[in-house]
Amino acid sequence: MIKVGVVGGTGYTGVELLRLLAQHPEVELVAVTSRSESGLPVSEMFPNLRGYVDIPFSDPQPEILTSCDVVFFATPNGVAMSMTAALLEAGVKVIDLAADFRIKDVSLWEEWYGMRHACPDLLAEAVYGMPEISREDIRKSRLIANPGCYPTATTLGFLPLIESGLADSQQLIADVKSGVSGAGRKASVAHLLCETSESLKAYGVSGHRHLPEIRQTLGGRLGSSVGLTFVPHLTPMMRGIHATLYATVVDRDIDLQSLYETRYKDERFVDVLPAGAHPETRSVRGSNICRIAVHRPQNSNVVVVLSVIDNLVKGAAGQAIHNMNIMFDCDEACGINNVALLP
Amino acid sequence: MIKVGVVGGTGYTGVELLRLLAQHPEVELVAVTSRSESGLPVSEMFPNLRGYVDIPFSDPQPEILTSCDVVFFATPNGVAMSMTAALLEAGVKVIDLAADFRIKDVSLWEEWYGMRHACPDLLAEAVYGMPEISREDIRKSRLIANPGCYPTATTLGFLPLIESGLADSQQLIADVKSGVSGAGRKASVAHLLCETSESLKAYGVSGHRHLPEIRQTLGGRLGSSVGLTFVPHLTPMMRGIHATLYATVVDRDIDLQSLYETRYKDERFVDVLPAGAHPETRSVRGSNICRIAVHRPQNSNVVVVLSVIDNLVKGAAGQAIHNMNIMFDCDEACGINNVALLP
Amino acid sequence: MIKVGVVGGTGYTGVELLRLLAQHPEVELVAVTSRSESGLPVSEMFPNLRGYVDIPFSDPQPEILTSCDVVFFATPNGVAMSMTAALLEAGVKVIDLAADFRIKDVSLWEEWYGMRHACPDLLAEAVYGMPEISREDIRKSRLIANPGCYPTATTLGFLPLIESGLADSQQLIADVKSGVSGAGRKASVAHLLCETSESLKAYGVSGHRHLPEIRQTLGGRLGSSVGLTFVPHLTPMMRGIHATLYATVVDRDIDLQSLYETRYKDERFVDVLPAGAHPETRSVRGSNICRIAVHRPQNSNVVVVLSVIDNLVKGAAGQAIHNMNIMFDCDEACGINNVALLP
Amino acid sequence: MIKVGVVGGTGYTGVELLRLLAQHPEVELVAVTSRSESGLPVSEMFPNLRGYVDIPFSDPQPEILTSCDVVFFATPNGVAMSMTAALLEAGVKVIDLAADFRIKDVSLWEEWYGMRHACPDLLAEAVYGMPEISREDIRKSRLIANPGCYPTATTLGFLPLIESGLADSQQLIADVKSGVSGAGRKASVAHLLCETSESLKAYGVSGHRHLPEIRQTLGGRLGSSVGLTFVPHLTPMMRGIHATLYATVVDRDIDLQSLYETRYKDERFVDVLPAGAHPETRSVRGSNICRIAVHRPQNSNVVVVLSVIDNLVKGAAGQAIHNMNIMFDCDEACGINNVALLP
Repeated sequence: MIKVGVVGGTGYTGVELLRLLAQHPEVELVAVTSRSESGLPVSEMFPNLRGYVDIPFSDPQPEILTSCDVVFFATPNGVAMSMTAALLEAGVKVIDLAADFRIKDVSLWEEWYGMRHACPDLLAEAVYGMPEISREDIRKSRLIANPGCYPTATTLGFLPLIESGLADSQQLIADVKSGVSGAGRKASVAHLLCETSESLKAYGVSGHRHLPEIRQTLGGRLGSSVGLTFVPHLTPMMRGIHATLYATVVDRDIDLQSLYETRYKDERFVDVLPAGAHPETRSVRGSNICRIAVHRPQNSNVVVVLSVIDNLVKGAAGQAIHNMNIMFDCDEACGINNVALLP
Repeated sequence: MIKVGVVGGTGYTGVELLRLLAQHPEVELVAVTSRSESGLPVSEMFPNLRGYVDIPFSDPQPEILTSCDVVFFATPNGVAMSMTAALLEAGVKVIDLAADFRIKDVSLWEEWYGMRHACPDLLAEAVYGMPEISREDIRKSRLIANPGCYPTATTLGFLPLIESGLADSQQLIADVKSGVSGAGRKASVAHLLCETSESLKAYGVSGHRHLPEIRQTLGGRLGSSVGLTFVPHLTPMMRGIHATLYATVVDRDIDLQSLYETRYKDERFVDVLPAGAHPETRSVRGSNICRIAVHRPQNSNVVVVLSVIDNLVKGAAGQAIHNMNIMFDCDEACGINNVALLP
Repeated sequence: MIKVGVVGGTGYTGVELLRLLAQHPEVELVAVTSRSESGLPVSEMFPNLRGYVDIPFSDPQPEILTSCDVVFFATPNGVAMSMTAALLEAGVKVIDLAADFRIKDVSLWEEWYGMRHACPDLLAEAVYGMPEISREDIRKSRLIANPGCYPTATTLGFLPLIESGLADSQQLIADVKSGVSGAGRKASVAHLLCETSESLKAYGVSGHRHLPEIRQTLGGRLGSSVGLTFVPHLTPMMRGIHATLYATVVDRDIDLQSLYETRYKDERFVDVLPAGAHPETRSVRGSNICRIAVHRPQNSNVVVVLSVIDNLVKGAAGQAIHNMNIMFDCDEACGINNVALLP
Repeated sequence: MIKVGVVGGTGYTGVELLRLLAQHPEVELVAVTSRSESGLPVSEMFPNLRGYVDIPFSDPQPEILTSCDVVFFATPNGVAMSMTAALLEAGVKVIDLAADFRIKDVSLWEEWYGMRHACPDLLAEAVYGMPEISREDIRKSRLIANPGCYPTATTLGFLPLIESGLADSQQLIADVKSGVSGAGRKASVAHLLCETSESLKAYGVSGHRHLPEIRQTLGGRLGSSVGLTFVPHLTPMMRGIHATLYATVVDRDIDLQSLYETRYKDERFVDVLPAGAHPETRSVRGSNICRIAVHRPQNSNVVVVLSVIDNLVKGAAGQAIHNMNIMFDCDEACGINNVALLP
C-alpha cells in the first residue's frame, strides 16, 4: 500500500482527490490536512465521503506528512513550494496540483504569479507531469508539477500538430471553455450560482496564467517558441473543459485523423474520436479521459481540434493519481478507470 | 461470472445500468438489446462507454437472452411482462426496472397503467426488490420488481415511523422533488432544457402511478392501509430525488434519531445523518446510497423526514444490481460501491 | 415625478429595484447609495443597466435622501431601522425590503433576528405591505414593511382558506422551494454555482425567520394563532419560489376553485389558474404576478395549493413598487406590468 | 395602431415576439396562427402571456392575415416563402424570422437548405434586416429577411474591422457559443435537459447554414469574398449567444476601441464596452442590445472581439420588431427598450 497524504483537502481538487484515493486499491490515506478546518471530520464538509473517508482534517504537521510515501498538494499557489524541500529530504515524493513548479523560467513564474519563488533550485528537478509527454521522466521523478486544466486540454489537442511540424506554430488559437469549478471553492461573489448560471463570458483575454504554461510545453515539443492566442471562457456548468483549437496547416494533404490516432494509440487516457465527431464534455464527466476530434472544415487549410476533459479529473486529481501510479509502478489506470457519469 | 443481458439499453436507466455493469467485477455483459438501434455500437449512442462496452445493440432474440443468467429490463412499462415467462422457463432470472410487476393487485395495476396485464399469475411470485425490506425473499427469487424512484426515497424515509407504529398512518404527506432524468430519454417538448431549466413545478397532483406503489409497501409493513398525499415536483436538475416527508407522531417523547439509526444500522446503502442535518441530493450523485435526516421542528408533533437518493442509481440501476448481487450471492456492494461525484 | 432614493443598491433586490424603477414612467431616480461602492457607476457593477441608470453609487448622505419623496431600503436587516426615523421626520416615505419592520412583537423580532430593535415605537406604525390584505392602510402609510419572499408566496396561497375558516388552521404545512437569489449577493461558499447547481436540499427545518412572519399574517386574518410547519428548500435555479401548501378542509363540499377565484377577482397581481393546473415558476420570471392553483387529490380532505412567484419581483422589488404606486396614487400596475420572460 | 399577424406562434421566437408585441404601445395583435394548435388559447400554451394575449391560435387563413399591416413569420424554413407573394400582393408587409429570404444566391440557398425556393424572384427584393447596415432600405421595404442569431452577433462584431479594411479578411475565425433555445421548441432527444445540461460541445464544424449568411453580409460590406471559419457550440443555458471573434490586423497602430465606438455611436442597440471589458450574455438577457468589447492581447496582431446578444431578442424577435418600427416610422426603440433581466 502507498501511504498518501493530502495537504489542503478543502477545495474541489481536494475532494476529487479524496473521492479517487478512497477507492484506489493500492492507497492508504494517512492524512488530509487543513489549517482552518483542523479537527473537522472530512466527511462533514463533504458528505459524499461518509463511509469512505473516516478521518478528520488535521494540521499539516511535518511528522505525519513525512511518514507518507507521497504527498499531494491541493493548495493555493505558493504553499507547496514552502514545504516541498523538507518532504523530499525526508524521502517523500511530492505531487503539486497547484502551479508552483510548472514554469521552468523563475522570472517568468514570478511575473505571472506575483510572488517570489521559494525554491527556484527545485524548479529544474520538477517534472511536468503529463504522462503522454514525459512518462519516463515521471517514473524516475520525486517531484511532479501536475499540469493545469486548461493546459491539459489544450496541449493534448495541439500536440500531434506541433510535434509533427505540420501546423503554422505562430498562429495558434485556443478558444477554451471551462466549468465554474475551475475557479475553486472559496467565498466569492463572482462565482455564485446567480452570477454564473445562465450566462457565458470570456475573461482574462489580456493574459491568463495558463498561457505561459501552454507555450512552454508546446515550445518544448517544437524546439522553438510558439505564437498562441489563448482565450478562456467561463460557462454555466460545474465540470468540464472544451478546448476549440485553430491552426493553419502547411499541407492540405496530410491525414489528420491518422496523425492523431497514431500519436495516441498507446495512451489509455486519450481517446481520438472517429472523423466527424463532436465530443461533449459530459462524455468525460468524472473520468480521466481526454476525448479529441479533428476537423478541417470545407477542406480549407484551417484545422479545428476539439478536445474535452473533466477539469477536476484529467485536468487535476485524476492526472495527479496517474502520475502517482507511474511513480509507484502501479497499473496506470489503477483507481482512475471510472466510466463517466452520463447524464 | 454472471452472464447478463440488458433489454432496452437506450434510456437513462439503461445507460446507468451499463455504466455500473461495465465495472462490476463479477459480470459479463452478453447482450444489450434495442429493436430500434440494432447494429449501432452502444458506445456510439453513449460515448462515456467508449472503451468499456464494446458491443452493438442487438435485436432482443430469445436464444441470446436465454443464454444469460439474468436479464434486466430497462424498457417502457409493458415490455417485460411479455417476455418474462419465457425467460423464467428457460431458467433465466429477471429483474424488471419498469413497473410491470410492482403492484400485486392486478386490477389496481391495470387501472393505473392503462393496459391489460400479460401474466397476472407471475405477479404473485414477483418480489418487490427493496433489500431493506425483503432481502431473504430477494435471495430466493427468480423475478424481481425493482422499485420506482419516488417510492424508494419515500418508503425508506417513512419506514421506521410506519413499522414502529409511532406515526398517524392516515395523514402522511410526501412532497417529493425529482430531477428531469426521471422522465426518461425520449423525444418530448416538455423535458427540453428550455422547458425545464430555471423553473420548478408540481405535476400529477391529482394522482401519480407511484402513489399506489408506495401505499402498497407502507400498507404491507403496517398491516393495514395508509392515508398518503403524494405530490411529485419536477426540478431543474438531471439527477436526484429529495423527499420531504411529513407525519404526525402520536408520542412526542420518542427518540426519532435513535429509531432511524437502529432500523438502518445494518443497511449498507442507507445512511442516517446526525441530528439536525439536511442531506443534499448531490451527496448521493452517482452513488447507491439513500441519505436520511429526521427533524421535529419546534418540538411540535410534526415529524419532517428528509430522504435523498440518486433516482438513476438507488432509484433504479443501482438497486437493480443490489438485487442481482443478493440473488447471486455476491457481496451486496459489489460494483455499486462508488463515492458520489461532488461537485 | 416621484423622487426616489435607493439605499443599498448592490444586492439582487437592489438591482431588481433599479431595473424596474429605471423603466417606471413616474419615477425619477435621485440616488443609489452604497458605502462600499461609493463612486462606482451603478452600471459598471450591473452592466444590464448601461444606458438606463447613469449615476454612480453614492454615500448614504442624509441631505440627498431627505430630498426624495420615498426611499427604498434594499439593505441587510438592521440598516433601515437606524435611518428611518430621520427620514420620516423629514417627510420622506420609507419602504423597507428587509425585515426590520415586519414583526409587530418586538421581543419576537429580537429573538429571531438576534439584535436589539432600534426603533420599536415605529413598529406599530409600520404597515405590512401586502396590497391584497392592506391596500387602504398602505395608501395612508408613510412606512412600509415589504413582505419577505417566502411569506408572500405562502400567505397568498393560504389566505382564502384561512379567511374563510374552511381549513384546520392548526395543521398547516408549507413546503416551499426557492431559487438561490433568495440568499442574496454576497461572498459565500454555500451559494457558489458548484455548491448549489444540480442539487436540492431543505434547510432551516428547525426554524426560519420567515416562519413567525407568516404566522403573524395568517394569525391576523384568522383572529387567532395558526399551527404551521414551514420547510424551506434551496433549489438549483436563480429566481422563483414554488410553495406547495397542505391543509385539511373541514368540509369536503366546498368549491375551492370558486373560493380562490372570488377572493382574488379584483387583484391585478394574483392569477388563479383553472382547476387542474400546475403553475411553473418560469411563468412569472421577471413579472410581479403570483400564480395559484388549488387541488384536492383523490377527493380526500387534504387541500394542496400551488403558489408561484418571482422572489425578486412579487417577493421583493415588484411588491415594493406596487406599494409605492398605491402610496403615491399611481396606477397600481405602473412600471411593474411586464410579461414574464419565457423561456 | 399597427395591425400585426404572427404566423407560427408556438416556438421560442414566436412566444418572444408575442411577449414584446403584447407590450408594444403601437401594436394591435390581430392573429396568431398555428395549424396544429388552432383553437387553443395562446396563453394556455404560454402561461406567461395570461392577461396579455387573450386570443386563441387560429388557422393561417388568408382573409385574416391580409387584414394586417404586417405579418411576422416565426415558422420553420420554407413556410414563409409559400405565403409571402399573396400577402405582398394584398399590400401586407412581411418580416420573415426564418431563413427563406436571407441568401441572395438561389442555388446557394437551395444547397444549404435542401429544398427548392418557392419564389426566387422575391429574393432580390427582400432586404436583409440588420438596421445597423441597411436602415434606409428597411424603411422602404415591404419584405424583410430577419437575420439569424449567430449572424447577428458575428456580423456586428466583425463589421468595423471589415468595413475599415483593417483586418485580413481571409483568415477570420468565429468561435460562437449559443444557448439551447436556438435549437427551437420541438420534440427531440438531443435538446432534452438531460442531454444538454452540464455539458458543452461544438457541432456542425463541417458546415452550418449560418456560414453562407455571414459570408454574404461581410463580403457585401467588403466588396469581395471573405475567408471565415465558423464553429458553433451548444452551451448549457437557455438564452444568449457569445461570439468570440479572431482576426489579424494589418496595422498594429490602429485604435480599435475608437474604431468600434465611432462605428456604433448612433446605434441604440449596439453598446461598445470600455477597453478591457468582458461582456456577459446575461447582461443582455431579454433585451435587444448587442454588447461588444475589443481586445488585442499582448499587443500581438491578433484582434479578439467579444460580442453578446440574446438570441431570441436581438437575434430574432427584437430585431424583427426593430425592423417593423423602422418600416412603420415608430421610434426605433418602441416596445423593445427593456432592461435585461439580471440575475
